[in-house]
Amino acid sequence: MTNTFVVVGGDAAGMSAASKAKRDDPDLEVVVFEKGEWVSYGACGLPYYIKGEIQSLEALVSVTPEEFREERDIDLRTGHEVVAIDPDERTVTAESASETVVQSYDHLLIATGAAAVVPEIDGTDREGVYTLGSMSDGKELREYVARARGGESFQQPDRGPACRFLEDCTGPVGVVGGGYIGIEMAEALAANGFEVNLFQRGDRLLKGFSEETSEAVADHLREEDVAVHLNASVEELAGGEAVEAVVTDDDRIAVEMVLLGTGVRPRTALAEDAGIELGKTGAIATDAYRETNVSDVYAAGDCAEATHVVTGESVHVPLALSANRHGRAVGQTVSGQPTEGGGVAGTAAIKAFDVEAARTGILDHDEARAAGFDPVTETVTAKSRAGYYPEGGDVTITLTADRDSGRILGGSLVSEYGEGAVHRSHAIVGALMEETTVFELENYDLAYAPPFNTTWDPVLVAAKVLAGSLR
Amino acid sequence: MTNTFVVVGGDAAGMSAASKAKRDDPDLEVVVFEKGEWVSYGACGLPYYIKGEIQSLEALVSVTPEEFREERDIDLRTGHEVVAIDPDERTVTAESASETVVQSYDHLLIATGAAAVVPEIDGTDREGVYTLGSMSDGKELREYVARARGGESFQQPDRGPACRFLEDCTGPVGVVGGGYIGIEMAEALAANGFEVNLFQRGDRLLKGFSEETSEAVADHLREEDVAVHLNASVEELAGGEAVEAVVTDDDRIAVEMVLLGTGVRPRTALAEDAGIELGKTGAIATDAYRETNVSDVYAAGDCAEATHVVTGESVHVPLALSANRHGRAVGQTVSGQPTEGGGVAGTAAIKAFDVEAARTGILDHDEARAAGFDPVTETVTAKSRAGYYPEGGDVTITLTADRDSGRILGGSLVSEYGEGAVHRSHAIVGALMEETTVFELENYDLAYAPPFNTTWDPVLVAAKVLAGSLR
Repeated sequence: MTNTFVVVGGDAAGMSAASKAKRDDPDLEVVVFEKGEWVSYGACGLPYYIKGEIQSLEALVSVTPEEFREERDIDLRTGHEVVAIDPDERTVTAESASETVVQSYDHLLIATGAAAVVPEIDGTDREGVYTLGSMSDGKELREYVARARGGESFQQPDRGPACRFLEDCTGPVGVVGGGYIGIEMAEALAANGFEVNLFQRGDRLLKGFSEETSEAVADHLREEDVAVHLNASVEELAGGEAVEAVVTDDDRIAVEMVLLGTGVRPRTALAEDAGIELGKTGAIATDAYRETNVSDVYAAGDCAEATHVVTGESVHVPLALSANRHGRAVGQTVSGQPTEGGGVAGTAAIKAFDVEAARTGILDHDEARAAGFDPVTETVTAKSRAGYYPEGGDVTITLTADRDSGRILGGSLVSEYGEGAVHRSHAIVGALMEETTVFELENYDLAYAPPFNTTWDPVLVAAKVLAGSLR
Repeated sequence: MTNTFVVVGGDAAGMSAASKAKRDDPDLEVVVFEKGEWVSYGACGLPYYIKGEIQSLEALVSVTPEEFREERDIDLRTGHEVVAIDPDERTVTAESASETVVQSYDHLLIATGAAAVVPEIDGTDREGVYTLGSMSDGKELREYVARARGGESFQQPDRGPACRFLEDCTGPVGVVGGGYIGIEMAEALAANGFEVNLFQRGDRLLKGFSEETSEAVADHLREEDVAVHLNASVEELAGGEAVEAVVTDDDRIAVEMVLLGTGVRPRTALAEDAGIELGKTGAIATDAYRETNVSDVYAAGDCAEATHVVTGESVHVPLALSANRHGRAVGQTVSGQPTEGGGVAGTAAIKAFDVEAARTGILDHDEARAAGFDPVTETVTAKSRAGYYPEGGDVTITLTADRDSGRILGGSLVSEYGEGAVHRSHAIVGALMEETTVFELENYDLAYAPPFNTTWDPVLVAAKVLAGSLR
């Protein structure tokens, strides 16, 4: 008797699971329902498409629907929205424009992802207000940019400071939210000649990163002529039919367009309706194998929780790698090899114009204390290459460890783009995953040569300084 | 009563130890004897000085003798060669041009470094035959390049393929040895217009790296018009007063100059004369605290052995970071806080023209078997950035693990310069230091964003493939 593995949602977690399950067990029948037309797409690439560095949406697709169907023998049904799960009958009901399908399953994966949050303020429904949560959002935004620049054909802009160098300069525009999407879109819009206003409710951008990283990124955005408004609580998107101004608690700034980059929310309605439990974060709760409270029903990716490797707590970290990893693990599990896929460290990277930054683990002292640690933090700025080597810049690294045990809890790194803040974070992630102490990290025998670092790589310099302050 | 810490040798290990000891215990009297005039210099930078990318030898010095004396309060005596150690009397005897000093010690560090090996073939004493082991060697080589280019003043060359684009093209020249120094000097000479012949006795360059890395580097050197002669056993450097040809077992190639890059040998005569034991590698044997068989006498840096983190064996790995780290640990120990400084992984990095590479741990299967492992190796080539991102290239990663345990034994990485092979090696080094398995490594929650990697960083891709072949 053939087993059937049904997947709801055809992006990172869903298609990773489907592909892995089918590869490991070719006898398994694998059915994927995706409500849209796009599957397995790199949503992380949308800002670069809108910026003009990538010329087609198709380029973001790593495997096409045809390839899934023909080469991987997966029964992929795009344009099919799953509207109900019946755990007792072990069926899902999916609707398309032309049919309603009831599909039975032996194993089910919910990989419904997350949706862009629209803040509860007036005016978000005005024309010219966008979010960036899907491929179609990306298409609309690119079309907006092309229109605003006065041409049908969108052209790759020259890299560099924007508005004042372009004849067809348009703007100003507003970006609400100083996280990944907000900053990447600020770059994409500025590079196309828009005068960009970036609004952040809190007192710094990238709040999951260290303060030093946040400041370095904010300083660089300002150098690139982005107006960074901190402590700016957006109260209304004012205007007529179209948006005309961003109104904050103490200012009113005229804009022609607004991009909302105010986070995402897990899509859980389908699961909830089927009696599947959510965790305290509001995402779907699972065990280490991504199985929900309902037997043989799994959840992975942006709709689900995961376990933080430092705190052991359930967290909702909607990022691409863990979606892929956990999806793949589910694929292995349902094909007969139970696989956990591991915890998450909340690791993330961003490029902002000519700066790169990464963060991992727990940096916030309150959060660390809540998990039972006594956090100590040091920040160092060190040369990215040998001091005498004729290129390079600085890398600023913030490292946090537990006072008693010396265990590394988190890190945040920032450098010029190309000077290695992001790849260097790999060392710190490894340390987190292995529950290493800073006394061990300072003795890591890392690679050294003058074109790549100082004899003590900046990561080791940070570890030395932090170890010194713990002794 | 004041304690006295005496250091023999004023480079990486010696000055790290002296500085750390004095900082941690300001009451300690710290005396350093250095036979030359240079201390704390970055010998790793010499090829870039000879190439012309660095304009003065002084730039390679991280801390000057005056700074050591005045700011760090270290009694640094340059121009003083230690000629004898008397462990019974606890004294060393040092000679300078004008005096002989007998200095008593409570703790002694031998940090005499390593000397460039001159192979036992005819003609190495001919004019125009150089080694690169010291600052004065670097000076001579740079002067040679300047002379050969027909000018008194040395000018920074344009980067790029060499001889055929320069009017004052000189050459050909020979480089014997396909390790770090040989390859870096091949680049330095080629960039100055020399026609470079690189002779390697074995069948590939960089024998400590993976075969794939060796091949990628050799291919790139050829693209840069370096003639790479593999399996070329150099039998004689022929000529009259000056060298005129490199004679191998089956060829004779005319040259105007030869650089010998055939490795280094630890300087141990002083230690041996004092009854200090050497290990099986021929370098000074120590315990985990770098203490020799003679009480209170330590050895660190290129003259000493260290423990390999994978095999647990004593090895001689003369590289800058462990010299610094172990010197610093000795400084801490003698100031009252016993510190090990950790083992070595044999991690190394190199830039060769526009390619970068790193290696760490045990890659050689015979070596792995001798240490009791059952090695399995996989090599993957993956994109250095998201496939759709408009830059980037490939990273080729070779990963070796033990079949039974899955423990990672070693890695070798190569990419275009700037595409992150070297900084990515940090993740693999961490895995080695922590005795991690490939099944853990594949679940590392590494940073991802399209400008830096694919969702699965190439390190994770390599781990996935290797894990798959172990299951």
